[in-house]
Amino acid sequence: MQSKTENKTLLQKADNFSEWYNEILKRAEVLDVRYPVKGVYTWYPYGYKLRNLTYSILKALMDREHEEVLFPLLIPKDELMKEKEHIKGFEDEVFWVTKGGSTDLDIPLALRPTSETAIYPVFKVWIRSHRDLPIRIYQVVNAFRYETKHTRPLIRLREITSFKEAHTAHASRADAEKQIKTAIATYQEFFDLLAVPYIITRRPNWDKFPGAEYSIAFDTLMPDGKTMQIATCHLLGESFARTFDIKYEDDDGALKFVNQTCYGISERCIAAVIALHGDDHGLVLPPEVAPIQVVIVPIVFSSKGKSEAVEKACSDVYEGLKEAGIRAFLDDSEERPGAKYYRWEMKGVPLRIEIGPRDVSSNSCVFVRRADFQRMQVPQSEVVPEVNRAIKEIQELIHKHAKETFFANIHISKAVVDDKEGMEELRKTAEHNIVSLFLCEDERCGADLEQRIGVTVLGVAINENEEAGKCIICSRKARRVYVARAY
Amino acid sequence: MQSKTENKTLLQKADNFSEWYNEILKRAEVLDVRYPVKGVYTWYPYGYKLRNLTYSILKALMDREHEEVLFPLLIPKDELMKEKEHIKGFEDEVFWVTKGGSTDLDIPLALRPTSETAIYPVFKVWIRSHRDLPIRIYQVVNAFRYETKHTRPLIRLREITSFKEAHTAHASRADAEKQIKTAIATYQEFFDLLAVPYIITRRPNWDKFPGAEYSIAFDTLMPDGKTMQIATCHLLGESFARTFDIKYEDDDGALKFVNQTCYGISERCIAAVIALHGDDHGLVLPPEVAPIQVVIVPIVFSSKGKSEAVEKACSDVYEGLKEAGIRAFLDDSEERPGAKYYRWEMKGVPLRIEIGPRDVSSNSCVFVRRADFQRMQVPQSEVVPEVNRAIKEIQELIHKHAKETFFANIHISKAVVDDKEGMEELRKTAEHNIVSLFLCEDERCGADLEQRIGVTVLGVAINENEEAGKCIICSRKARRVYVARAY
Repeated sequence: MQSKTENKTLLQKADNFSEWYNEILKRAEVLDVRYPVKGVYTWYPYGYKLRNLTYSILKALMDREHEEVLFPLLIPKDELMKEKEHIKGFEDEVFWVTKGGSTDLDIPLALRPTSETAIYPVFKVWIRSHRDLPIRIYQVVNAFRYETKHTRPLIRLREITSFKEAHTAHASRADAEKQIKTAIATYQEFFDLLAVPYIITRRPNWDKFPGAEYSIAFDTLMPDGKTMQIATCHLLGESFARTFDIKYEDDDGALKFVNQTCYGISERCIAAVIALHGDDHGLVLPPEVAPIQVVIVPIVFSSKGKSEAVEKACSDVYEGLKEAGIRAFLDDSEERPGAKYYRWEMKGVPLRIEIGPRDVSSNSCVFVRRADFQRMQVPQSEVVPEVNRAIKEIQELIHKHAKETFFANIHISKAVVDDKEGMEELRKTAEHNIVSLFLCEDERCGADLEQRIGVTVLGVAINENEEAGKCIICSRKARRVYVARAY
Repeated sequence: MQSKTENKTLLQKADNFSEWYNEILKRAEVLDVRYPVKGVYTWYPYGYKLRNLTYSILKALMDREHEEVLFPLLIPKDELMKEKEHIKGFEDEVFWVTKGGSTDLDIPLALRPTSETAIYPVFKVWIRSHRDLPIRIYQVVNAFRYETKHTRPLIRLREITSFKEAHTAHASRADAEKQIKTAIATYQEFFDLLAVPYIITRRPNWDKFPGAEYSIAFDTLMPDGKTMQIATCHLLGESFARTFDIKYEDDDGALKFVNQTCYGISERCIAAVIALHGDDHGLVLPPEVAPIQVVIVPIVFSSKGKSEAVEKACSDVYEGLKEAGIRAFLDDSEERPGAKYYRWEMKGVPLRIEIGPRDVSSNSCVFVRRADFQRMQVPQSEVVPEVNRAIKEIQELIHKHAKETFFANIHISKAVVDDKEGMEELRKTAEHNIVSLFLCEDERCGADLEQRIGVTVLGVAINENEEAGKCIICSRKARRVYVARAY
């Protein structure tokens, strides 16, 4: 479906990330943005393969201790409105179905913005006794937000097409908190497989999930210096259980409220893969999620016509890789090798194998790594083990590179209260960095800081040494928090 | 999640199919119907595993020559309204989103009832030249119908959760017609794997898909004697291409309209599996789609306590099956064997393996087939090959049984025009059978017959010998059509 008159010039990631991002989604055929509704997009076949591979990893991780289910999209207004905090957080961004055919519905139906209020009334009937607990379920669904801000493919959507949401219910708060820890560890595993670095913070109280006791979030850093939230885990405690009357009979016969958690990941995980790893030549996909891990390109010169020996060598290599379970593609189309390089580089195929007449005579081939264009001569007899080794190395290389960039952009500030110069410097640093500074838990200090240096308070990092200090705004006792400009 | 006070009595399929169907969905934990919106339901974990296995078969069949994509759910009113025939067919059953937050939307958005009008505007920009053709894509999505009739889980839904819709575009009508043939063959393969028998007919002109030139449909026969449409394939010709201006440049430079097809399957395929194969003990699942293909039940008597030898034999058998890629489950819970039999029979597990102390001493075990409760002694050393053989036999047995019932309920009528007695007999026969009779293509004759004997005209069977005769209503020249009471 790629137009034949495609512009073959390089992309310019550093100059204008936003333009680069839109252009790469188009040229690599990830998403088509030409749909006549704001904030909703079409997945191309290639993009959807990337999506499916990414989500099959996520599902496999979830399947270890969750069961997949599917709840309805439509939530009656009265159910959605039950949890006061929750609805306050969502009421401005809910799409409402008000008509069926030409009939006005008795009760408007919301398109789920998230599924707490669809799932928990059913939890109420599923849960009777402590023997029914814990319940751990997840679903991968479309969800809807009436975004009024600027929408952006995969990042800020009116239809989130791939919302993986998990919901759990437990007999005790300790069990729920333990579940949050497991969820965090699982998400770490997931993003490590995507080679996406992150910080994990506990969101400030004024920015937690509506209805939660606290929210833990994963943020990564985009090339334009803004952070993007890529996962959240919420301890709900008993708030929804009380609203939806979800009780269980404990082994002492007492009726108790369950303790709940929920945690989610959307297609922003794919936005991160694209944005962090891609370069001016196009996508750079980690082998774990690449729809094609290895592309084989026969080097034939039109003046000399086809070479049967080259064709045979290519097809032997292809069959060997396929048999070994590697996602390989043999590009034996009529195009020039250069045009093929361009296409598969754009699509981020991790490894290219070139085989030409000279390679055939030496029984070898050439590996070219997409991530750094490193070339290597490999004996044809060694292709399968060498590809497996290369795939592993490329995965690590991409991860290493992303982590280096990420951590180079975390700035530990020593600025203190009333340091005007330091504040101005902070503002500049925060334009392209995550900044760690001392801030107390008072919402007013957060708001003040956000206004002064144009950042969002991400929160206190979990799993990091707690360093005590003085709030940069009010000089009261404070802990280090991360702040950044955020998506 | 199964309530501990579950009624352990047998179901009564023959007496009241409708009640049996609802009861089995609940007891086998396929779907939970307790959701506060009419016609939408929750997939239980077990049901969703059955759904995923069924759809992974369908997807693998589609992947042979289609690419998976994903288009938006929301369709702007003006796009949906473009194709006159099409919208006439759907306007009464479209859900409309009219509000975002508290804002009225400029243009109401339909929840897709089907995706022609979402996909074809994008086809217009994807298709430029004959080299872009054919396009063959599919998606598995939720779709919505504002059903005013009695809704029924998996069968008549307001949210169809698992709509597999394929859309293709071709350079010529001949290519499109060929595609319809391929689609039919693929669907035959699919339903054969589900052991679901069907007839394939060309729907009468007055009952074709709105906007199609003709529609081919698969119908199966439910235990209450009504047919259920389980798949449709539509030749769209140029109608949508003209509406949405989808043209390609042929190799002679001329701009031509593409020729299109679409075809779909919904979760009715799972309704058919449940309804056709199930019995008074619960589900009977074909091994191809059974979430658990083999359950191993240790036979221990509480008076004698646990037997390590039995436990070891069970776990050896379990490990062997798992290693062989068979979906096995070892039920080593504390319940009595009888309670376990009940549960796994209800859930339709195709094969049960019982191992007790006596079996251990003879190094054997007992196979019990769910479909016919046949018992067989098998040496433990032969378990894996014997399970593989049993799985194959059970699949065939279920299919054979379903086909026998199906074809025994097809009645070839010899009734002729003005035969009042024959007509009364037909009416009675059609209460529980598919009837084949002569009917011309005049809609009035169809309507007349439908009214007189309370049936729906399904259409002329494809791939059957064409027999000429006289229309039972008007005695003009006619072909044999199938008629039946229909869902």
